[in-house]
Amino acid sequence: MSNTSGQADLIVHARWILPIEGDEKTLNHHALVIRDGLIIDLLPSADAERRWSADEVLTLDRHALMPGFVNAHTHAAMNLFRGLADDLPLMTWLEEHIWPAESKWMSEQFVHDGTRFAAAEMIRGGTTCFADMYFFPDAIARASVEAGLRVTVFSPILDFPTPMGQGPDDYLKMALASHDTWRYEALVNVGFGPHAPYTVSDEPLQKVVTWAEELDAPIMMHIHETAFEVQSAQESTGQRPLARLHQLGLLSPRMLAVHMTQLTDDEIKLVAETGTSVVHCPESNLKLASGFCAVEALRQHGVNLALGTDGAASNNDVDMIGELRTAALLAKGVAGSADALPASAALEMATLGGARALGLDQQIGSLVRGKQADVIAIDLGAVETQPVFDPLAQIVYAAGRSQVTHTWVAGRCLMADRELKTLNEARVLRDAHAWGEKIAGDK
Amino acid sequence: MSNTSGQADLIVHARWILPIEGDEKTLNHHALVIRDGLIIDLLPSADAERRWSADEVLTLDRHALMPGFVNAHTHAAMNLFRGLADDLPLMTWLEEHIWPAESKWMSEQFVHDGTRFAAAEMIRGGTTCFADMYFFPDAIARASVEAGLRVTVFSPILDFPTPMGQGPDDYLKMALASHDTWRYEALVNVGFGPHAPYTVSDEPLQKVVTWAEELDAPIMMHIHETAFEVQSAQESTGQRPLARLHQLGLLSPRMLAVHMTQLTDDEIKLVAETGTSVVHCPESNLKLASGFCAVEALRQHGVNLALGTDGAASNNDVDMIGELRTAALLAKGVAGSADALPASAALEMATLGGARALGLDQQIGSLVRGKQADVIAIDLGAVETQPVFDPLAQIVYAAGRSQVTHTWVAGRCLMADRELKTLNEARVLRDAHAWGEKIAGDK
Repeated sequence: MSNTSGQADLIVHARWILPIEGDEKTLNHHALVIRDGLIIDLLPSADAERRWSADEVLTLDRHALMPGFVNAHTHAAMNLFRGLADDLPLMTWLEEHIWPAESKWMSEQFVHDGTRFAAAEMIRGGTTCFADMYFFPDAIARASVEAGLRVTVFSPILDFPTPMGQGPDDYLKMALASHDTWRYEALVNVGFGPHAPYTVSDEPLQKVVTWAEELDAPIMMHIHETAFEVQSAQESTGQRPLARLHQLGLLSPRMLAVHMTQLTDDEIKLVAETGTSVVHCPESNLKLASGFCAVEALRQHGVNLALGTDGAASNNDVDMIGELRTAALLAKGVAGSADALPASAALEMATLGGARALGLDQQIGSLVRGKQADVIAIDLGAVETQPVFDPLAQIVYAAGRSQVTHTWVAGRCLMADRELKTLNEARVLRDAHAWGEKIAGDK
Repeated sequence: MSNTSGQADLIVHARWILPIEGDEKTLNHHALVIRDGLIIDLLPSADAERRWSADEVLTLDRHALMPGFVNAHTHAAMNLFRGLADDLPLMTWLEEHIWPAESKWMSEQFVHDGTRFAAAEMIRGGTTCFADMYFFPDAIARASVEAGLRVTVFSPILDFPTPMGQGPDDYLKMALASHDTWRYEALVNVGFGPHAPYTVSDEPLQKVVTWAEELDAPIMMHIHETAFEVQSAQESTGQRPLARLHQLGLLSPRMLAVHMTQLTDDEIKLVAETGTSVVHCPESNLKLASGFCAVEALRQHGVNLALGTDGAASNNDVDMIGELRTAALLAKGVAGSADALPASAALEMATLGGARALGLDQQIGSLVRGKQADVIAIDLGAVETQPVFDPLAQIVYAAGRSQVTHTWVAGRCLMADRELKTLNEARVLRDAHAWGEKIAGDK
């Protein structure tokens, strides 16, 4: 066996390690060995001390070490609209608040600043990779690289003009250009983000399928978000959106179908058969009263599940630990069964499930030799998470975002002991505050 | 007007004050003036500086000041069982895990240590008053007084023997003794806690009604927690539990009906007509798949709603900010309406609603002149809660428990800048850890 001893960049000894993949759910007193951004070993601490030396050795004796969270659906820049308009029905919220605010403020600068601001919150909450779907994908990618986060940017495709472009051909061209721009940046991937069945017509969707196959890129789309969406489509076309998308060839392992609160048994089977991933956004679905996603039924059919916070304008944060808890709790209520979506399945959804959905599971999503060192540490020593009978369940059901102490992406430290390393927290806060003042002043 | 100027004990200037009662939901740049444990004024900071002097003046310029949370249903000592058994159906969880653990470990010492441990978590999370229902009420009260928290202890009543007593007459005697013991302790109230319709028969329930009226004490009971409970009662007696309790005279403004996930329209009307309070425990109901409480329908009927975390063995914390968010989100999903249980109603439920349920709304639950100074401060300056368009919605939808910086009960400071003042955090943690080791070692 190679790589079983020698010199490394970083060794982290932790009270517990949750690898997510492998035979053991929880390893006690183990160490993770990192070199050149990769995990090169995972072994008992006592053995690690004998076999490995490293430039930096960290001992986290009240902590659980696990893969960073993969936030599989967000609109990060909307962090600047957090709390702008709450407790409103979806269409009032969109038409009277969000769309006017977007048309007033949308720019590359807004998206860059908003994404960087959200990146600070993501790093503080243990997210190491996010899937974003918003205007100006290059600005998203730039802010993300600045923060050191891993991102898949889903370049938006719509039938109509926006501050970003004129129409579908324009958007498609921009998506291809972004894909080209970022092809040599290891932390950035670019996919296609046709907004929703009701905002993108057949022709651009067919082009998206063709290009996504050509470039081996993922596709993300809001699908069956509300009963209204499904009903309107049925009334105007006689067809449910999912059936139409299937006919167009969109349902496949490269599709991340977001929300999916309205699914018949046959549709659940179709999703499973086509290898489509479902991105569950429980807090957004609750807050906008969109409906309940049948998470446990999807899981029982073997569908790959990922977890997303959605944008902070609707949910109102990018807190994956909070989202994870809501997902684990809500799945039980919806299934009417206390053993639905157990803690380990919820944690997998928030990590490896997201990686699979993005086609990145060979690189991230679990702590396995050869994968990228996208890793976080959570301190379970606080009053709120003692005593510890099962660290995995403790993270899902009791830990809070403020207990994340360290965040690494590809072995690079983005936060240590709650201190941001790549971003200047004071500056990020100052920018967010300034944007807030401008937006509030205009209301 | 009296009390409009002079010498006070403490003045707190805050960026925002949320009084919960009164014309304004949010006051900007106001000050709260406290003397002898009471709120004696609430006025613009500029006026406060002119009119009042105080031994201590605190300026919290990124914070929202609000009444402390009233956790209207918990079993605090169960914090020591946090995470002992998760993802299990209710009866398996109770019969194979919780009851065996309780019968093995239950003692006055366990309840005292567990309650004190939970008190540390409550103070850190901004809870100033809690309603507890567990064995050994005097141990609960002692731990609570030690922590400086306000408590209403619901002394348990059951048909069968437990480590605490022999049977209903024994339990009733103990409740009366506890009521007598704590009558001169301002922070402690004692009520009656008949466990559930299926564990207490008619005769002791009639005695509870008689005694509660005599002593003007509240009654708390788990009611219609699951469909199984209601169905079993119907099968064995031909009657739904709520109808039986109504016949026995239990439904009244002194009753706190906990859970209530199974309610017909007529039952909702009955609850409203009788002035019964409903204590909603959304996370416990989800995690144990008990069902969904029709919170918005109850609210539309004018029912007083309170919020409880339930015990940490089932939910798994005593975090009122988390519970508040879950309640506000879930109510929308259940009602199918994004304007159900808006942020201000959710916040009222978590404060004044709980105070009303406990019959303490003349003393606590809002920041009003003459009420007890049970107050908390929440720092909204962090990345997770910026920008601030509406501080009230920000607390409900974005703030986390770790952003609570100060907690006062009756004007006494229990936490300042996250540092516990009445409890020794290291000692509390050491005790909890030691109990955890014992319990885990025995598994």
